Parts: sequence; C-alpha cells; structure tokens
Amino acid sequence: MLPSDFINALRQAAGAANVLTDPADCWPYGYDNSRRHALPEAVAFATDHEVVHDIVALCYRYALPLVARGRGTGTTGATVPLQGGLVLSLERMDKIVHVDVDNRVMVVQPGATNQAVQEAAAVHGFFWPPDPTSAAFCTVGGNLAYNSAGPRAVKYGTPRENTLGLRAVTGSGVEIRTGVYTTKGVVGYDLTRLLIGSEGTLAVITEATLKLTPLPETKRLLQAAYRDIHSAAQAVSRIMAQPVTPCALEFIDGRAIAMIRDYARIPLPEQAGAMLMIEVDGQHVAIDAAVDSIRAAAANQGLLEIKAAGNDAETAALWATRKALSPALRTIAPKKINEDVVVPVSRMAELIGGLDELAQEFAIIIVNFGHAGNGNIHVNLLVNPDDPAELQRAERCLDRVFDLVLKLNGTLSGEHGVGIEKRDFVAREIATPALELMRGIKTLFDPKGILNPGKMLPPLIADS
Amino acid sequence: MLPSDFINALRQAAGAANVLTDPADCWPYGYDNSRRHALPEAVAFATDHEVVHDIVALCYRYALPLVARGRGTGTTGATVPLQGGLVLSLERMDKIVHVDVDNRVMVVQPGATNQAVQEAAAVHGFFWPPDPTSAAFCTVGGNLAYNSAGPRAVKYGTPRENTLGLRAVTGSGVEIRTGVYTTKGVVGYDLTRLLIGSEGTLAVITEATLKLTPLPETKRLLQAAYRDIHSAAQAVSRIMAQPVTPCALEFIDGRAIAMIRDYARIPLPEQAGAMLMIEVDGQHVAIDAAVDSIRAAAANQGLLEIKAAGNDAETAALWATRKALSPALRTIAPKKINEDVVVPVSRMAELIGGLDELAQEFAIIIVNFGHAGNGNIHVNLLVNPDDPAELQRAERCLDRVFDLVLKLNGTLSGEHGVGIEKRDFVAREIATPALELMRGIKTLFDPKGILNPGKMLPPLIADS
Repeated sequence: MLPSDFINALRQAAGAANVLTDPADCWPYGYDNSRRHALPEAVAFATDHEVVHDIVALCYRYALPLVARGRGTGTTGATVPLQGGLVLSLERMDKIVHVDVDNRVMVVQPGATNQAVQEAAAVHGFFWPPDPTSAAFCTVGGNLAYNSAGPRAVKYGTPRENTLGLRAVTGSGVEIRTGVYTTKGVVGYDLTRLLIGSEGTLAVITEATLKLTPLPETKRLLQAAYRDIHSAAQAVSRIMAQPVTPCALEFIDGRAIAMIRDYARIPLPEQAGAMLMIEVDGQHVAIDAAVDSIRAAAANQGLLEIKAAGNDAETAALWATRKALSPALRTIAPKKINEDVVVPVSRMAELIGGLDELAQEFAIIIVNFGHAGNGNIHVNLLVNPDDPAELQRAERCLDRVFDLVLKLNGTLSGEHGVGIEKRDFVAREIATPALELMRGIKTLFDPKGILNPGKMLPPLIADS
Repeated sequence: MLPSDFINALRQAAGAANVLTDPADCWPYGYDNSRRHALPEAVAFATDHEVVHDIVALCYRYALPLVARGRGTGTTGATVPLQGGLVLSLERMDKIVHVDVDNRVMVVQPGATNQAVQEAAAVHGFFWPPDPTSAAFCTVGGNLAYNSAGPRAVKYGTPRENTLGLRAVTGSGVEIRTGVYTTKGVVGYDLTRLLIGSEGTLAVITEATLKLTPLPETKRLLQAAYRDIHSAAQAVSRIMAQPVTPCALEFIDGRAIAMIRDYARIPLPEQAGAMLMIEVDGQHVAIDAAVDSIRAAAANQGLLEIKAAGNDAETAALWATRKALSPALRTIAPKKINEDVVVPVSRMAELIGGLDELAQEFAIIIVNFGHAGNGNIHVNLLVNPDDPAELQRAERCLDRVFDLVLKLNGTLSGEHGVGIEKRDFVAREIATPALELMRGIKTLFDPKGILNPGKMLPPLIADS
C-alpha cells in the first residue's frame, strides 16, 4: 500500500484526473507485450516536464519504485512494475515541440508515437530512421529506452546514431540536459548515448532532439529466393561489401517460407531454403543501377530466383509475402516466444544451422527471420508458454540459443532490449568489470534504486 | 621524482628499452600541437594490451598520474602531462589486427594512424569515415579520445557513429570490453560511446572494433562563391534539406578568400564574401544528377559563381584553393589561435556576423573556415600569443566568442575536444547536475584520479 500522503502529493503534482489508484484501473498498466504482468499500486499520467520532475522527486523522497512507460509495446517485460509502486505513463506527453527544417532537427516529447514523428517529418521531406514494426503504436520514448530500430537501421542506424540530445530527470529527481543541438559536439562525456538503451533505469526522458534525414527520391524492392541459408548468407555479405547499401535487407528462413506458402497460398519456389527482401533507395536516376548492383551481389550458385518490383503494385505484392508470415505464425502458435539475437553477418549460416540442431534436440519448431544486413535474427520458438512442460523445454532451448549466439561473437539483443526476459543472461555476455561499472553508473543516476528496479542489469548474485 | 622501485617495476612491465627517464629524452613527449608543454617524469612505450594493463595497474598502485598519448597532434593540451608522472605512448601499438571484409569490420590497436587504417580498408574497397586533417599523422586512439572527425562527418558521422566496441584498461588497472562485434546491440549501458570523447580520463583504449563503409564509386567537387555569409549559410541549409547529402560541405569566409587571393595568387571573385566547397559521392550513373541537385540548392541571389570540377586535374585545382589557406595564415600569424566551435547551421550567419563585431572590438583579425554542413566553424584569431598583451586581448575575445556560440545554441568544440584549453569554459555549456554526474563517472572509472588529471572536466571551484 502506498502511503496516503504520497498519493495526495502525487495528485497535487499530476492533477487528480491524471492519477489512478483503483486496482481495476491500474491493471492494464501492469502489462507490456511480453506475457508478464504485475499490478502497479498507482498510475500517473505526466503532461509536461515539470510534472515528471515533481513526480520523480516525490518517489525519490518516499523511496518508491517508479516505472516509466510509453504505450507498452515492449516485449521484454521492461515496463512491468515487478516491485509495485508507481507506473508513470508518458503517453499524454506526445507533442512534436518543433520541426527545425534548416537544421534537420525535430524536438519531441517522449509520448509521441514513432509514426507521428515520421508524419511530422515527412511534411518537410524528412524522416527519422528508427522504424520498429510497431511504429504506428510505439512511442519515441520507448524507441530511445531500448535503442529500438527496424529494417532501415542497416543503412541509417539506430536511435543512438539519430539523436542529438535529451532532457531528462534522474532518479534523484534532478533535471539534466545531455548532448547538443548540432550534429557535432565533444564537450563532456556522452550522457546522451548512455541514457539511450538504458530502459528507464537511469533517468526519465522528457524531451528528445532528433536528427532528421532527407527522404530519398525513390525506392525499389527485390525478392531473392535461395536454395539454402548458406547461399543467402553469402549474398548478404556480398551485398554489404559493395557501395550500394540497401535501406532494408530482410531475411526469412525455409520454415517461414513453407508457412507463407501453406497459409497464405503465395507461390514461392518449392526448393527455397531462405529468402531475402532487399530494398534500395536513392535518386531516380540511380535506382536502376542500384538494382543492378544488388542483383550482381545477390547472384550465386544457390540463387533460385530474383524479382524486382517494377511498380507500386508489384512492391506491395512482394511485401505481402513478408507480411503473410506473422499471421501464419500466429495461427500455428499464438503465444510464440520471439527473441532478437544478433550475430556477425558472416556467422548467420552457422547460427541458423545451430538453431536447426537445437530445434531437433528440443523438439521445438523454430522459425527465423529478421534484419539480415545487421545479422539481427528474430528467433521464434513455436511453443505454448501456458503449458508448463513446453515452457520449460523452451527455456532450456533458449539457454542454449544464447550460448550459441555468444559463441558466434554475437549479442543477446539487437533491438528488443533486456528487461526481465534476458536479465539473467546478461552476465554471460558482459564480464564482471564492465557490469560493475554499469552498476556504479546506475547508483550515480539513481542512488535509491527507484527507477525501474530489477530490470536490465542482473542481480549481483548472478555473477558469483 | 618518481620512486625508484616504481621505475624498476615500469622497466619490468614495458621492457627496459621502452622506458625513458632522462629529462632530455622525455622532453618531446611533453608537447602536443597546442602551445603548451610540461615535462613528464618518465615515458613508457606500450607494445601490447598486457603491457598497458600492467603499467596502468602499477600507476594505480603508486597513485601516479598517467597520460596516454598517440602522436601528439591534438590542439588542446589534452596530452600535456600537467602534473608530471608518466606519459604512456601508444604509438608502437600500431597493428591492424584484422580486416573482416564479410562483416565490414576492422580491429586495430590505438597507435595505428588514421591513414594506415584508410589504406588497410581501401585494399578491400572500404574506408573508415573519420578523416581529420591530420590523418597522415594522427592515431586512431587519438581520434577516439576526442571523437575527432573531419569533412566527411557531414554525411558519414564521427567516431561515435563508426565504432562498434572497445577493449580498454580503466584507471583501476582493470580490463574492460565494451560494445559488440555487430552493427546492432542493446545489452547493457553504452560504455563504448562513453569512452569515445573522454580524452583518456576514464580508461586507456587498447583495441578498437571499427565499422567500415564501402568506398563510393566516384566523387565530384563543386566550388561556389557568394556575395556574403548570409547567402552562403542559406545555401548550406538548402543543400542539407535535399536528398543528396554531400560528403563534404566546407566553408571559407571573406577574409580567408582575400588571403588566398593575395598570398596564393588564385583568382577568386573580388566581391566574394564567402565560399563553399561541396563534394558529392555515389554511383557513377548518379553523380551528374547529384551535382545538378547541389547546383539547384546552392543557387540563390547571392551566388556569384559556381564551378564543378570535370576531371581530376580540375578537382585538384579547386582543392588547391582551400589548401592555400593554411600557408597563407601561417605567413601572417605563425602561432594563430584556432578554435573549433559549432552552431546550428541556421545560425552560422549570425555567428560570423558576431565574430566580425568582436574582431573590430578587440582589434584582432579573425579568419573563419570549417565544416559548414555540421555548423563546425574553425575560428582563427591571428595574434602572436608570445606577446603577453596580445595574448590577453585574444583571451578576452575568446571568452566572448564562447558566450556568442552558446547564445546561438551551439557547442564549444566539434572535434578538437576540451583538454586544458577549454576546460574552464565547460561549465558554461554543461549545467551543474550533468557535470556532477560526469565527475561521478570519472571517479567510478578512475577512483584515484590518475588518468590524465586536470583535463576536460573543470575543477569543482569553477561551478561555485
């Protein structure tokens, strides 16, 4: 139970209409897009920076947990209030503060959706590169919290490469401004990138200065089917080594292709063991040559078929192939487990081979797709996590998946983050000295440990 | 005087041939490219990671200052050993450890020169984007220490956008590995970017995993002369708002143009108040269209003349204009003061206008050029700093320059860093709460304060 004088002060800070305390009202704010839930003891909706500041300062005074939250599209349980306390929803802080065309800069509040940012930028001929699949719903604050990107990262980078500065409130209730309003700046340590990807454990972001990129004149999509993953992976390396970097280089494995063929009745080559979706963008005058360069790099002995969309309808038809996958997966396994590991591009074939072996060993269907240009593979375990035996088998399998990824010089997450899901595996990737520095940084920014407690960094016991 | 048992242990760690203690031998390692000097009490040359590790651990044990140093091309006094102690030279750790073509990655030791990196990458059709003017001499370790870039940053970013991971030794003598070997990764806090730009105050970098970019097929250079800075600045904004981002967008002011005309006898329009050098790169098939796009964006009422180089000889002739500036400046003021402030692109004209006023007020000739696409202007005060009166006048003028830059929402340094030169101005740009966090981070990484003491962060007294 939260102290009643805390609740009173919270109502004063946020406005009574912006505070929920009835468990039934609070319930929906205890979820994210993982299968986890914990009931917040209160929910507050911030409307501006000052409100956030006052609320964090209040939680600091009472030493109460505070979990900042956007729209809850995260998949790792990072916004699930494990230790109760307050959920601070930022979804009403959704202003586009300004678009500064001359400087290619947009200043936004954290609750603006990714799509709202894209729309406000597009009016002026710009875009913001990070483009998670959930762009229509997810907030910029969430994108920054997990450094979430999407297909375009292969050419344009992640939030860390596309954010100039932040305004935030630390766990001590202190306002900080990080970074600059310019595309260069080397005064002081880089606190901007430190906050990006810190999953709400260091500070609550209240404003972000985003770096915009001019929209390309045009795009062209290609679809290439390969006999096996080895030839597809070889093509990815060759595509990435020539001068035309694609703006999307997506991968679908053989099992996913079979599903699309069976469930969506889209005709795909029977012998296809892997497929690439490759998009190039650029000047009108250059796009045909770009397509030719990609065709040349994509060609190898395992290539079965390559198609380039000639118009919008053909582009839509090709993307339909990729988009048919999620419904197909949902039909087979509504609650599948989806991981987003990364390996060096040259090790992708080994990863997929190793996953096939693990699928057999644990008798689990594993379907893989993802952002091949970054080696960022979404590994989907088609299990029913509500069946305890199946869940346990899946967990043992995942444990081995993570070992495999690290053996291949990869990383446990490319864009979903750690949250609760991968917290206890972090110490396998990051050695104790770096983890200790991270814990020290956590204590500096959040001395009472009130910000998103229990997330991201493994508890000390995991190291011993 | 360093303790003799420290010196003995140092000889053991580095090898006797890699340790200097005679003041005459140590003398040259007390300089950088600023006008500052301090005598190190000893100099050691590291040959591999283990040696660095042992030496830092030794300095930690004895609580002695350690200043890591590349080739001393920095301009801020950052490697001048203010408090004596040991200078640790990394210039002999200059191996290109490997070039991994399939993954667009190069692993290097910190003492490799930027040029050695570019040459090793070019063999495979790649480059590493950071390109300081001193590329032939400066080391990658130095580039990382100051987050130094150059003209290409406008399109390709700085070291922070082009480095995947680091191996380093903290001030406690502890090895850490940061980041990943992949182009995505969100596990743990971003210590890689925290170390980049930290000027050797947090850790000594012993290995870096660099992200490579494919070399463009071709390049084309344009030179545009404008009546005044306002029309040039307007052109810069318009160039940056259209889809063809140039790979260099350099600026020269009217006084610099006059110097080039007078000293190098290169014919430039008499009425020119500003000049832009604009380079585009890309596919052969697209380069003419790219030049057309730049021409269109560069055209305004103040444009006097625009030329595009048609071949290599013409390109060399146009770059000769820019390259004539440094010798001309050296002729007039051999020891000029060169600052590298940054303002938003849209405020460049205001900056140059303000600098003109300050030049009059302080009776100092100020010449400006720099990386206009980033708003990164090199402000050159043509004074003789050996004349105390002139130096004092210059310092008072610089004080006002920094205030002007901050008023225009800029930053004090874009690529040179802070070192000693700007240390006492940092608190004007960064407010106390963020500075306190930075000091806390410094203490975490370097609890005894042995790494590059007295640099970058202002002493506590400056805040009060």
